[in-house]
Amino acid sequence: MARRILVATGGGDCPGLNAVIRGIVKRAYLEEGWEIFGCIESFNGILKDNIEIIPLTPKVVSGLHVKGGTIIKTTNRGGPFHFPVQQEDGTWTTEDRSELMKRRLENLGIEAVVNIGGDGSQRISVALENMGINVVGVPKTIDNDLATTDFTFGFQTAVQIATEAFDKLVTTAESHNRIFIMEVMGRDAGWITLHSALAGGADVCLIPEIPYDPRKVAEKIATRYRDNEGFCNIVIAEGAIPFNGTVSGSSSTLAGDLHFKLHGAGDRLRSELEEIGVDHDIRVTVLGHLQRGGTPTAFDRILATAFGVKAFELVKDRKYGQMVVYRQPDILHVSLREAISQPNLIDPKTNAFVHAARGVGMSFGD
Amino acid sequence: MARRILVATGGGDCPGLNAVIRGIVKRAYLEEGWEIFGCIESFNGILKDNIEIIPLTPKVVSGLHVKGGTIIKTTNRGGPFHFPVQQEDGTWTTEDRSELMKRRLENLGIEAVVNIGGDGSQRISVALENMGINVVGVPKTIDNDLATTDFTFGFQTAVQIATEAFDKLVTTAESHNRIFIMEVMGRDAGWITLHSALAGGADVCLIPEIPYDPRKVAEKIATRYRDNEGFCNIVIAEGAIPFNGTVSGSSSTLAGDLHFKLHGAGDRLRSELEEIGVDHDIRVTVLGHLQRGGTPTAFDRILATAFGVKAFELVKDRKYGQMVVYRQPDILHVSLREAISQPNLIDPKTNAFVHAARGVGMSFGD
Amino acid sequence: MARRILVATGGGDCPGLNAVIRGIVKRAYLEEGWEIFGCIESFNGILKDNIEIIPLTPKVVSGLHVKGGTIIKTTNRGGPFHFPVQQEDGTWTTEDRSELMKRRLENLGIEAVVNIGGDGSQRISVALENMGINVVGVPKTIDNDLATTDFTFGFQTAVQIATEAFDKLVTTAESHNRIFIMEVMGRDAGWITLHSALAGGADVCLIPEIPYDPRKVAEKIATRYRDNEGFCNIVIAEGAIPFNGTVSGSSSTLAGDLHFKLHGAGDRLRSELEEIGVDHDIRVTVLGHLQRGGTPTAFDRILATAFGVKAFELVKDRKYGQMVVYRQPDILHVSLREAISQPNLIDPKTNAFVHAARGVGMSFGD
Amino acid sequence: MARRILVATGGGDCPGLNAVIRGIVKRAYLEEGWEIFGCIESFNGILKDNIEIIPLTPKVVSGLHVKGGTIIKTTNRGGPFHFPVQQEDGTWTTEDRSELMKRRLENLGIEAVVNIGGDGSQRISVALENMGINVVGVPKTIDNDLATTDFTFGFQTAVQIATEAFDKLVTTAESHNRIFIMEVMGRDAGWITLHSALAGGADVCLIPEIPYDPRKVAEKIATRYRDNEGFCNIVIAEGAIPFNGTVSGSSSTLAGDLHFKLHGAGDRLRSELEEIGVDHDIRVTVLGHLQRGGTPTAFDRILATAFGVKAFELVKDRKYGQMVVYRQPDILHVSLREAISQPNLIDPKTNAFVHAARGVGMSFGD
Repeated sequence: MARRILVATGGGDCPGLNAVIRGIVKRAYLEEGWEIFGCIESFNGILKDNIEIIPLTPKVVSGLHVKGGTIIKTTNRGGPFHFPVQQEDGTWTTEDRSELMKRRLENLGIEAVVNIGGDGSQRISVALENMGINVVGVPKTIDNDLATTDFTFGFQTAVQIATEAFDKLVTTAESHNRIFIMEVMGRDAGWITLHSALAGGADVCLIPEIPYDPRKVAEKIATRYRDNEGFCNIVIAEGAIPFNGTVSGSSSTLAGDLHFKLHGAGDRLRSELEEIGVDHDIRVTVLGHLQRGGTPTAFDRILATAFGVKAFELVKDRKYGQMVVYRQPDILHVSLREAISQPNLIDPKTNAFVHAARGVGMSFGD
Repeated sequence: MARRILVATGGGDCPGLNAVIRGIVKRAYLEEGWEIFGCIESFNGILKDNIEIIPLTPKVVSGLHVKGGTIIKTTNRGGPFHFPVQQEDGTWTTEDRSELMKRRLENLGIEAVVNIGGDGSQRISVALENMGINVVGVPKTIDNDLATTDFTFGFQTAVQIATEAFDKLVTTAESHNRIFIMEVMGRDAGWITLHSALAGGADVCLIPEIPYDPRKVAEKIATRYRDNEGFCNIVIAEGAIPFNGTVSGSSSTLAGDLHFKLHGAGDRLRSELEEIGVDHDIRVTVLGHLQRGGTPTAFDRILATAFGVKAFELVKDRKYGQMVVYRQPDILHVSLREAISQPNLIDPKTNAFVHAARGVGMSFGD
Repeated sequence: MARRILVATGGGDCPGLNAVIRGIVKRAYLEEGWEIFGCIESFNGILKDNIEIIPLTPKVVSGLHVKGGTIIKTTNRGGPFHFPVQQEDGTWTTEDRSELMKRRLENLGIEAVVNIGGDGSQRISVALENMGINVVGVPKTIDNDLATTDFTFGFQTAVQIATEAFDKLVTTAESHNRIFIMEVMGRDAGWITLHSALAGGADVCLIPEIPYDPRKVAEKIATRYRDNEGFCNIVIAEGAIPFNGTVSGSSSTLAGDLHFKLHGAGDRLRSELEEIGVDHDIRVTVLGHLQRGGTPTAFDRILATAFGVKAFELVKDRKYGQMVVYRQPDILHVSLREAISQPNLIDPKTNAFVHAARGVGMSFGD
Repeated sequence: MARRILVATGGGDCPGLNAVIRGIVKRAYLEEGWEIFGCIESFNGILKDNIEIIPLTPKVVSGLHVKGGTIIKTTNRGGPFHFPVQQEDGTWTTEDRSELMKRRLENLGIEAVVNIGGDGSQRISVALENMGINVVGVPKTIDNDLATTDFTFGFQTAVQIATEAFDKLVTTAESHNRIFIMEVMGRDAGWITLHSALAGGADVCLIPEIPYDPRKVAEKIATRYRDNEGFCNIVIAEGAIPFNGTVSGSSSTLAGDLHFKLHGAGDRLRSELEEIGVDHDIRVTVLGHLQRGGTPTAFDRILATAFGVKAFELVKDRKYGQMVVYRQPDILHVSLREAISQPNLIDPKTNAFVHAARGVGMSFGD
């Protein structure tokens, strides 16, 4: 009888997910006797009243490494421990369907699960492991905020997209003597911000790891205009925050809070700068989902493919409870527990690219 | 003595402006005895207390066709008839400096002005003509809303950028079973919206020329989910509007108005759909300035270069009061008066690409 | 019973073919009672001993407008009038299977054929029409060499690819003070060459319609180096030829012929320039198939989609013997006979973009 | 008096050179009292009878990180130890001008040289060091073949360009059932080949480090056609070679040699396959200089900028005789002697990406 693997993708989509899936399937079909199934919409596919899983054959995954997104769908909702159920009165609650999941995996003859996902997904992986389900994890975070791997797929694609967007904004900023604020992804980690700011040649780079002072940003702007550059480009992470007390006065703080709720970090910064008295034309662009989409860069396709191949091999070798990682130049594995133990944030003191950015005159608002 | 031309770019920047400038300069320097000057920041450069104009030589414009934006800067503010002046009490007013402009042109020995700009800029061209200043116009509108030319440069670049953005959003929409609303430029004309929706393969396309009914949009979404596609992509022009009475009830209208002020057409549509009861996850992306930037497409570089060459030749042949136009396959000219007499809007009844869009099942919300 | 259409793609592949196929299918399924089939490998699919045709449903064509190439395959070989057959002795001959095709179409209940192809393919369309088979043609030529349509899909994509390649070569040419020759497609027509040379900003542009003198090219190169530019970029069509007697002496002509056979127009030009005594470093890049591949530009997707919709509507309205054309801003049709009567070549005397190219100092080697 | 640095770029151009130059200059001008000069055409600028060096100010390098190539030109010819000199009889010889270089550097008050270049250039760096000239090296190899750094700038750009070219060829290969051979750079090292083959999803990947057997390639092709894929895509390094005796018979070897001289590795492979009897349509595309050009990817801009900043800091700290390197996640330095001691070739036995490539079924022809 065939040995069976179930593959799921969890959390926000990320360029390279399909390449991982293809890697697993193509590697598996080099061996005799394996069958790979895809679980639709993260683990929900196997938790629903009517199971939704699909066979993943070489034909199905052919050419998939070029395609963004995930053909087996993904979501942030539900999962084995908090599956949404509608009650008789119409309201929703959640229930633990992890035992149902285990039973169904057994019934379907599935010996292991490959869970491709970020921090939250891998916490679920650990919990499933604890129940005796065999799991292999593949890291997925566009934010590059996992400490145990040098890079995650999707990150370079997001940086490339943000950099190309920045290149476009520069020409219009120059032509109009404007200040442009480009808001990119990164709630806790500033990797996409730092890399795209450095690649684009931004004047200011604001990241969650370095609380910024709007007055310092305004000073940098003033310097730019005094030096007759006549425009200023700022990249800000969605999670960047001014340090306490920067914007003085209760009304302004309120306005700031309101802005932050209605809009994001970019709009808040504009509001802060206007309040300080910056009177140049300021425009905000929020990249948002553009950073998640499209075909992965060459590097991300390669990394994702190698992750997929490795994930299958871990299952084949019965090395469960492990997560695939990249430690240049090798593809290795660490325990899932170790993988989720700490995030990968930028250390402003030691990071080589923060140093390089300061070296070309970039301000971090500090 | 050298014959002199002053070149200005007016209004929002547009991919191809630099290519026009290069075309004028390179063409002029094939002849003996011409000098080209660039007026900094639209016409303001020659209106300021300290004149700001720069010599444009072949060396200065070398390689410029590849670069977005305009090296001689542009603005929507000021101009010969409404130049901003600060009064003694610190407040601002505007004054008519058109006579100053005429005098300065004479003093500088400039025999003609090439004004690269949109509708508003060409109205100024006509007014300058009426004063006896020699003007040649070059049309510039990223929105393609000029009736006398088949296409304007910048339009195809904007469509290409919007289409590539759409391609990126599709993969993430598919992966998450989401509804994506992409808002693109176009206050009065839906050209960028129509073309990028058709090129991307949108399910819904909302343009200023066809007032939409949010309930029709909701129906289209319902059909998509019923057919198990599981996602829906909408492109909306910033100037698209629901037809009167669509969103019933005073409170909702109020909410709609508020949304429209705080946000744009995309956010308003989301609000309308949510009010109707669409309960899928809806995400809005506003492309904004991304559409204006970056290197022009091959077609726009070609068109802009040909416009620049033609503009010089009109001056050389003393054909003033004319605007350069493209009428496939020719580069011709029309009088400035004719050029600004009517906009180029989509005629929903006769337009071949609206017909094609409906032919592949796209909804216009009508 | 369903009304049936057979779709075939013929000749070299071209970005946009899949978009045409999708347009036909999506349009057909808006009506009741139509079925679309795809003939594999041009018409060979219906001519083979074992028929190869596939049903084309909305599901099959979903997202296809983004994909280059043709999912129903294409070829330059075979066809109804010269189908290849292997004889008993192993050698190959061809036979006329057009009557077989007609009979099979009748048996399959197919009422019309949509033939997407170039000049050669449309000649077959006419011949099939003459036999009483209902045919609608869709023009396909990456070279843009059809006189009855303003543009064909694929052309702008090829120009864009060639322009982006040119942009890449410019930076390396500048850095090394080299002469770069980029050879692009175009046996008889110089459209891709002219447009990419103008978009890229080439110094020399050599097209089939203007026989060139290598000494004129050498002069242009000398001027560039004298003016201290230090590099020179040339775009040449594969079908560009030096005019008679240019390269004097029998041995050199022989060498030229040999080079032409072994290589292409680019290598021949290098040989000619070296013979004349140009002693700068000359490099040749042949774009070849790169120009045919990849996702179509927005414009080409739009045009191809509109062509597909129109092709179906012609069949629906029983307007047979017609070919779809684009005459800005309309999608119209002309008789197949008219369509193939004359090619669309560049007229060096009247073409607006040749004029613009000369206007920015480009040499055509004449 | 200002402290002065002379910057030179040597060998083939590479995306990122300008970003390094900008990094050095922007970093230097953060300090007081530094002046940076650029030596035109590698070191030849300071060796010529009329010195050619230019001042590199922040204004000159503004926006340069986006631009491919090198604004201070580069060459493979000349240099301090073999400077070309024309003799009285018109013939050329070379002379050692290293002492002249040293004297001139002293006269110009230049305290250190930053030499951006590959293996050959850094050997010159060592020789200059030995003469008492202060040198800091920055590694430059598009081939990624330096052992002391994790990556070199330009490499990822080349891989990205090759991958995008591959994507284009795939659609045309599929449409025509063809075999495509794409030849990429890499004389001794197969990095670009391996990475672009894996990113593109090639069926066969031939690299210098693994001598290939054309019959194994033919077998892979046969398998593809038997499995009804109907096309096959091959990436080959320019330095890939068949292992001895593969193509049997003296005549064939001769033919192979002749092909190799006239053409490259791709054409030779086609010839080998045709000789073996592969009778499918085979097309060869040689990417050549396309891989060197254009704007660097985000990653390469970042890496190059960080290298530039570090190079200046090494000079500032008087750490001469060192070369900048990237060891993820740090920017460090090694001695120039160590840097050139060994190349970075692919180890087929241990390389993780060779393993991944085999894991998705790719053949290396072994």
